[in-house]
Amino acid sequence: MIPIKLQNKFELIQDHWSPRIVAELNDQWMKLAKVKGEFFWHSHDAEDELFYVFKGCLGINFKDKVEHIDDGEMLVIPKGVEHKPFTLNDQEIWIVLMETKTTEHTGKVEHALTQRELKWI
Amino acid sequence: MIPIKLQNKFELIQDHWSPRIVAELNDQWMKLAKVKGEFFWHSHDAEDELFYVFKGCLGINFKDKVEHIDDGEMLVIPKGVEHKPFTLNDQEIWIVLMETKTTEHTGKVEHALTQRELKWI
Repeated sequence: MIPIKLQNKFELIQDHWSPRIVAELNDQWMKLAKVKGEFFWHSHDAEDELFYVFKGCLGINFKDKVEHIDDGEMLVIPKGVEHKPFTLNDQEIWIVLMETKTTEHTGKVEHALTQRELKWI
Repeated sequence: MIPIKLQNKFELIQDHWSPRIVAELNDQWMKLAKVKGEFFWHSHDAEDELFYVFKGCLGINFKDKVEHIDDGEMLVIPKGVEHKPFTLNDQEIWIVLMETKTTEHTGKVEHALTQRELKWI
């Protein structure tokens, strides 16, 4: 039990769209990710997903609207809701995720970014 | 589904040691609280509790040590671990909590701060 400085953990991440675990509680993981460019449409059947933006502005496409989450803002995407995250102007965005441990970050989509093994950082 | 700016929500809180709910996901609540002074010893038998400090520095007494969580830092307190949060120099600290919805923030201690009814903000 030692406090974790999120900034320091983010600085260890080199790749994009590849979340790393920083904390575990109540069957949830808190994960950090650097993202840049466009992800793809997906959803999580059984898990809600919280996005908190630590740096930059994250865009999220929904089927009926677009939202922008600025740093210091958060949004919960309920289970089953299709979404496609993206970043603007080729900026790198730093995000915090909170979700059930079973959550596959590419949903049911098989993709090079599907993580076979989640790593702690 | 609209992004929530934590700063704005914090500014609505007037009292201390009285968490308000800002988000719900996977049977967890994200709560915000302003704290100042000293809480009391308690623990949560069945629930882990995440503290993230948004502003200031939060002290937490444990039975065998003291930790200080600065802004931008987080700490997970596992279920069953006794703890006593406090603030330094009479400063008001802004904290984000993530915990199971069943978590009673005073643990098993009956106190004026025990919340009969948790409110959203």
